[in-house]
Amino acid sequence: DINVDLFESEMKWSEFKLNSDGMIPVVVQDYKTNEVLMLAYMNEEAFLKTIETGKMTYWSRSRNELWTKGLTSGHFQYVKSLIMDCDNDTMLAKVSQIGVACHTGKRSCFFQKVVEREYKETNPLKVFEKVYGVI
Amino acid sequence: DINVDLFESEMKWSEFKLNSDGMIPVVVQDYKTNEVLMLAYMNEEAFLKTIETGKMTYWSRSRNELWTKGLTSGHFQYVKSLIMDCDNDTMLAKVSQIGVACHTGKRSCFFQKVVEREYKETNPLKVFEKVYGVI
Repeated sequence: DINVDLFESEMKWSEFKLNSDGMIPVVVQDYKTNEVLMLAYMNEEAFLKTIETGKMTYWSRSRNELWTKGLTSGHFQYVKSLIMDCDNDTMLAKVSQIGVACHTGKRSCFFQKVVEREYKETNPLKVFEKVYGVI
Repeated sequence: DINVDLFESEMKWSEFKLNSDGMIPVVVQDYKTNEVLMLAYMNEEAFLKTIETGKMTYWSRSRNELWTKGLTSGHFQYVKSLIMDCDNDTMLAKVSQIGVACHTGKRSCFFQKVVEREYKETNPLKVFEKVYGVI
């Protein structure tokens, strides 16, 4: 079911506005549920590798090396779409996440509550997501 | 319907791992649809102001000033939840977005296609989102 055809990019790296480290932040989102999975960073090498392979590839700022997500864990992220924001300084990646995104074993890296306002989950989308989770 | 009760934070600014500019990136997501609206940055002042007011407040890197989103446009973002990631270096904000998030007038700042793989929108969630959009 996973398609690994090559991509062609409609934007060049040179069009992007880089942060002070020469990279762009990438918001990674599950293409089906819209859950935000993680934030990571790309340099040009990582961007080109992502386009070439269809697998999300970042620059690891801690290990200072190219990092194809899933290469050791098997938890690849297959690219569904890459979208730049209005300022050309941030990317949104919609992906098909194999396994989990977080090294803790959780699906998403975002799980530490800072504040939360209770709101009614009466919105039909949320109810449907629950049903969908069961399907 | 919009509640402006005060929040109490379960995490302190000093627990966060700041980037080289002394800030943290904040992924902003619509709390109902899970659409990613924008990425912005907070310093400590912006974080405290957000907690205090319940309205998303950032540090504008271009204007170099505190920026309560919506103060001039009316397009406030009311906090529903703030969640830190596993590394304590990125925040996810779920918000109730008044009007639009982007200065271009679009709902989300992410609209410039880089690459896109066609995938079947047969997933019931997507179909439901369309229905929900009509409701």
